[in-house]
Amino acid sequence: MTTPSETRVNLSEIMRATEANLLGTVHGGNIMKAVDSCAGVVANRYAGGPAVTAALDEMSFLTPVRVGDILHTSAQLNWAGRSSMEVGVRVEVDRWDTHTDRVHVASAYLVFVAVDEHGKSKAVPPLDLETPEEKRRFREAEIRREHRLASRAAIEALRAEGDDA
Amino acid sequence: MTTPSETRVNLSEIMRATEANLLGTVHGGNIMKAVDSCAGVVANRYAGGPAVTAALDEMSFLTPVRVGDILHTSAQLNWAGRSSMEVGVRVEVDRWDTHTDRVHVASAYLVFVAVDEHGKSKAVPPLDLETPEEKRRFREAEIRREHRLASRAAIEALRAEGDDA
Amino acid sequence: MTTPSETRVNLSEIMRATEANLLGTVHGGNIMKAVDSCAGVVANRYAGGPAVTAALDEMSFLTPVRVGDILHTSAQLNWAGRSSMEVGVRVEVDRWDTHTDRVHVASAYLVFVAVDEHGKSKAVPPLDLETPEEKRRFREAEIRREHRLASRAAIEALRAEGDDA
Amino acid sequence: MTTPSETRVNLSEIMRATEANLLGTVHGGNIMKAVDSCAGVVANRYAGGPAVTAALDEMSFLTPVRVGDILHTSAQLNWAGRSSMEVGVRVEVDRWDTHTDRVHVASAYLVFVAVDEHGKSKAVPPLDLETPEEKRRFREAEIRREHRLASRAAIEALRAEGDDA
Amino acid sequence: MTTPSETRVNLSEIMRATEANLLGTVHGGNIMKAVDSCAGVVANRYAGGPAVTAALDEMSFLTPVRVGDILHTSAQLNWAGRSSMEVGVRVEVDRWDTHTDRVHVASAYLVFVAVDEHGKSKAVPPLDLETPEEKRRFREAEIRREHRLASRAAIEALRAEGDDA
Amino acid sequence: MTTPSETRVNLSEIMRATEANLLGTVHGGNIMKAVDSCAGVVANRYAGGPAVTAALDEMSFLTPVRVGDILHTSAQLNWAGRSSMEVGVRVEVDRWDTHTDRVHVASAYLVFVAVDEHGKSKAVPPLDLETPEEKRRFREAEIRREHRLASRAAIEALRAEGDDA
Repeated sequence: MTTPSETRVNLSEIMRATEANLLGTVHGGNIMKAVDSCAGVVANRYAGGPAVTAALDEMSFLTPVRVGDILHTSAQLNWAGRSSMEVGVRVEVDRWDTHTDRVHVASAYLVFVAVDEHGKSKAVPPLDLETPEEKRRFREAEIRREHRLASRAAIEALRAEGDDA
Repeated sequence: MTTPSETRVNLSEIMRATEANLLGTVHGGNIMKAVDSCAGVVANRYAGGPAVTAALDEMSFLTPVRVGDILHTSAQLNWAGRSSMEVGVRVEVDRWDTHTDRVHVASAYLVFVAVDEHGKSKAVPPLDLETPEEKRRFREAEIRREHRLASRAAIEALRAEGDDA
Repeated sequence: MTTPSETRVNLSEIMRATEANLLGTVHGGNIMKAVDSCAGVVANRYAGGPAVTAALDEMSFLTPVRVGDILHTSAQLNWAGRSSMEVGVRVEVDRWDTHTDRVHVASAYLVFVAVDEHGKSKAVPPLDLETPEEKRRFREAEIRREHRLASRAAIEALRAEGDDA
Repeated sequence: MTTPSETRVNLSEIMRATEANLLGTVHGGNIMKAVDSCAGVVANRYAGGPAVTAALDEMSFLTPVRVGDILHTSAQLNWAGRSSMEVGVRVEVDRWDTHTDRVHVASAYLVFVAVDEHGKSKAVPPLDLETPEEKRRFREAEIRREHRLASRAAIEALRAEGDDA
Repeated sequence: MTTPSETRVNLSEIMRATEANLLGTVHGGNIMKAVDSCAGVVANRYAGGPAVTAALDEMSFLTPVRVGDILHTSAQLNWAGRSSMEVGVRVEVDRWDTHTDRVHVASAYLVFVAVDEHGKSKAVPPLDLETPEEKRRFREAEIRREHRLASRAAIEALRAEGDDA
Repeated sequence: MTTPSETRVNLSEIMRATEANLLGTVHGGNIMKAVDSCAGVVANRYAGGPAVTAALDEMSFLTPVRVGDILHTSAQLNWAGRSSMEVGVRVEVDRWDTHTDRVHVASAYLVFVAVDEHGKSKAVPPLDLETPEEKRRFREAEIRREHRLASRAAIEALRAEGDDA
């Protein structure tokens, strides 16, 4: 069995001018794409084959990423069910000036589903939780799921009172 | 004052083979980027200048997008605070075969912050809610925010019990 | 049978800085590519398989497209022969400032040929003309073809008088 | 003064798989973009500054371009008015197998307008016609213009009889 | 048998703003990629199938390439062994202002290896040297190889004296 | 003063299908571009401003890079003169299957020159050599330079005997 820390993947790339707006701030969509890409490697390797993104659960952008920054994405499996997996991603940057420390710019949690060659969901192995931190991350994934479901239920109830979607 | 429906922006693009995995399924990251792009136009226009992505709040992928599909992203302002704005985006596709109806493939809610030329947050005008649907969407944005804050608080509490982040 | 209006495809995309010259004007070649792309979907769907561009018959650029504009391409089948099809495309933009109306920036007429898996031309179904506008567009396609042939003949005659090509 | 042959620009590039459909045939839109790009260099140099595409007048695709082909675009000024210029472009390919001769795949005629820093049209120098071929190409450009205007007039008349555009 | 001059391939492309730094100087990496691409066509054609880059042996950048320049890469086979080939590439530019001569901006020598469908090396035909220049280029390739091996041996000796790599 | 190890920059990216030939092998030109990019960050940071590539001194490709591999480039300053700097780059991959060790795929040595805002060369600070390994790498850079100059001199002598270049 595999532990969460054995699934970790780190990627690092330079932010180019083509990915930024006129203020030199990199578009959020480019960060999202880098996050999905890094998390996708974790999910694909754990599943031993293709896995597709099912949800992106709350991604926060704490401070802007700028042209010339080196963007570090670090992803790890937090939780695994029958065929779905939660991957957590932490995004940090090195500013152009090397003398500052790494800056935490964003965090995201993505849910992937393992699929077979016909696109049908298929089972993934159970995750081996060893350290207290791994157990805490697993529990956090459950909390996110509970609140996501509660939020959806509250919104469904609100819509049921009204007329359309 | 502007109503939510006056802020609506619709974009439509063809999904290319370069954006897909070997099963012909378009990577979630490409959908996220299209969503951020469309929502960004809504936020930039409403703010009358640059706005940066602050958070992507739950994006669900309901069914895969395939190479050759036409991807329709439709974005609208749901909520506006002092300098932040929630934009809702609905993503649908036309499959290559025209005889089927449009398929709902994803939904997302993004928070943007209006910024001035120094990257500092700046005020946006209040939103003019007219129809029951506009009022419901405004209320839904509040529910999402409440659950997001509650989820974060529960996770912070869990982390405070343990040792690290 | 299919009517021309049933073949209509509309695409909308944001014009990026990477597609423009230093004045902020989008290169004509990018508009041509968007036009070919939108018209290609119409031709491919009508043919029920691959179709290749045979000619682009007069494309006029009425006013510049600028970075930040939303480019709308709207394509429809005007005429169908045995294996070739004329597709008309109208290109409009929304300027960054939403308060102005859509601006008509270009029009183009493209001829496509349906091909089989070996690249040989193959038959397409006849077009069902219903409305007066559909009949007029069909007749316009014939006028363009007549003048294109007459222009070519006059140039061939001129070349025959001289020496080379 | 400059002669047409002194304005000639030749470009040559390899056709990549990312520019092709599933049959290995390069999309017409990519050829159009290469043609606009090469013709644009001719027009910009002749104008001594920016020039924008005003029209693409009949572009014919004689035979498909394939992945792996080397695409040669050769452009030259045929005609110059006060601020507008006609550029002719011949497109040839070397197939992957070097033993065959160059194949003529497309021809196009583009009209450019010289503009100043505010995007207003500005004058270009007169063209110095020396050889019989240069004079013939100049006359051909006039024939294309006459037929383009006649075709437009016939279509306008047809539309005036009917109701819409 | 084929002579070196029969293997010559010339490519020419415009340098875009997306390939440059903020001074308008094109990144060396883009020139390297253009060089590998042009040399790769020579090697693939000579091998009659796929060939992979084995080494890039000294590439000098004599003067900066700028946005708007037309980059000309000219590649030719200098030397062929059993399955490996040396290709020489000369890179020149036309500056935006046409009145200056072509400028020599870089030279490079690349070694390719012909491979079969399993990626194993396979034999290439012997090269037919006819002119004194072809014989000189062949001898130069041998000098480069001798010095490359001598340089490596000296460095290996230095490393053997010390501890790590 | 800065030591070589303080200049180290590590980048990691996934190799996409768009960068590969039909055998799934990534083109050498893409590896060269990644190498130039990573080395450029080292040189730009050390120079405290723009630096341009002056030479790429022997780059060897030891084994093919494949689609799906994670490419790790690790660059460090080996040598600094008045305004020029040698940067060494080691390229390794993680194959898709995580169970294998990192594979060393290429090594390269690049020379950069620091430039001011007019593109003129400008001085860089002296390098602080501390460890035996740093001193050995500095000496290796000198050996490479000696052999590069000797190879060039031998080739110049050969050319002087003959007629052209």
